[in-house]
Amino acid sequence: MHDLIIVGSGPAALSCGMTARKRNLTCLVVANDAKSGWLYKAEQLDNYPGMPKVSGQKLLEVFRTQAEDLGVQFMGGVVRQIQPMGDAYMILVGNEVLESRAVALAMGAARPKLLPGEEELIGRGVSWCGTCDGMFYRGKQVAVLSAWHGGVEEALFLAGLASRVDYYALSAHTPPTDSRIKLRDEKPLRLEAAENRRIAVVTDHGSEMYDGVFIFRPAVAPDRMLPGLNLDGSFVAVDRAMRTNLPRVYACGDCAGLPLQVAKAVGEGNIAAISCAEDLAHA
Amino acid sequence: MHDLIIVGSGPAALSCGMTARKRNLTCLVVANDAKSGWLYKAEQLDNYPGMPKVSGQKLLEVFRTQAEDLGVQFMGGVVRQIQPMGDAYMILVGNEVLESRAVALAMGAARPKLLPGEEELIGRGVSWCGTCDGMFYRGKQVAVLSAWHGGVEEALFLAGLASRVDYYALSAHTPPTDSRIKLRDEKPLRLEAAENRRIAVVTDHGSEMYDGVFIFRPAVAPDRMLPGLNLDGSFVAVDRAMRTNLPRVYACGDCAGLPLQVAKAVGEGNIAAISCAEDLAHA
Repeated sequence: MHDLIIVGSGPAALSCGMTARKRNLTCLVVANDAKSGWLYKAEQLDNYPGMPKVSGQKLLEVFRTQAEDLGVQFMGGVVRQIQPMGDAYMILVGNEVLESRAVALAMGAARPKLLPGEEELIGRGVSWCGTCDGMFYRGKQVAVLSAWHGGVEEALFLAGLASRVDYYALSAHTPPTDSRIKLRDEKPLRLEAAENRRIAVVTDHGSEMYDGVFIFRPAVAPDRMLPGLNLDGSFVAVDRAMRTNLPRVYACGDCAGLPLQVAKAVGEGNIAAISCAEDLAHA
Repeated sequence: MHDLIIVGSGPAALSCGMTARKRNLTCLVVANDAKSGWLYKAEQLDNYPGMPKVSGQKLLEVFRTQAEDLGVQFMGGVVRQIQPMGDAYMILVGNEVLESRAVALAMGAARPKLLPGEEELIGRGVSWCGTCDGMFYRGKQVAVLSAWHGGVEEALFLAGLASRVDYYALSAHTPPTDSRIKLRDEKPLRLEAAENRRIAVVTDHGSEMYDGVFIFRPAVAPDRMLPGLNLDGSFVAVDRAMRTNLPRVYACGDCAGLPLQVAKAVGEGNIAAISCAEDLAHA
């Protein structure tokens, strides 16, 4: 059981982790490769105080080393789902379940672009979580649509359950090589509800029918990740103490609103950690 | 006419200045010596991201150099009063009047400790501003109570107007040496309203009567500095964009609330500058 799990590994996440450690909380940062973010590619930042003319890559490296030196732990992976469980939260990372007393959301502002029909059909044959919903498709026919390499592992997991697994790559990555999985070249354009509760994947070459469609992307919309979380537009709604509407859940950095700036993210991560330490002291 | 005048010179002020410059605003930081603050004396900070194990002094030096390199201007002095003037603000620094389209308050959380009776008698014989109120005491008898060396200049100014100037040092500093000014050794304990609209300075050795009492301290309470400014407890009330209730007036850092942390101050300074740039673009 961790005191605090932080979702994301940018400036808000790392600042949050540093201050959480200074407040003696155990603290795990869970995120995909930070190299995919816009900050990593930024050539030069001028207005982050204390690091004049620093590159985004250098800034992230210095932050990470500092966080590690303070005892922040790190784990690679995408957080798919967070669920309240008594006084704690269960956090699903890939196929692993972690437990934490508190959660800080700091996954940035990148929003997955959905396929037409996708959102409406979630929970009605379309799923974003193999671990959560795979069991419902034992012996059935499923499609995997994946926008990143993380879908490969999910497809292999599903291949052990379903009678048929088709794999559509939504982006360039190395697809699974497994005789149980059929690689498809068509480009999915949209999803449609079909007869007998089946789902049609409409592609540029026609359409295919499945009992279930699993879609995997490196980012998950925050209110999908954590049901019941209040949004403010496309951002997580927070107060000035970075508390969300859910107990012991905080948000900071780009996912908590404009401006999308490193200094602002660092400040909010700091505030979230202080609020968390206060809340856990009284929990 | 400046675009933005920033009151204070700590992390919030300097972060605000840096981002204001990146948004092409002209920007003047007005503050007393930063060496008086708690941060300057801090031996080591661990949780300011990017500067592990830095001293407060070193951090302030690096921030200031970075701000100067970005074109932030600096001026020493205490901001005594800010007044709206059409679409701009007039800022009284010592005896100088500056003009700015916008103002960011970042003067920290230090609160002047008042003498008993002081606040009730402000505007009724007690003043915190020689430049504002000196003229009312031409040919009259005044006391100067000063908690810092800045009171010396004010006493000299008043000596050119009043018929009698007594100087009480509320803290250790070099007092004025001028034949028109009488240095008093007594320790002022409280102020009282007396007959004929006079003020009694009650000391540890009795009491003295004056037509006016001027009190000078290195800090001014924010709602006294800027009448009409809303407070939240003893802090300046702001929204998440660091806007106060007054147009084009922002607050950031310790004066805008807890936690009193460098990272939080830096983030809020950044946000205040972005909000200011937005507001001035639409003004």
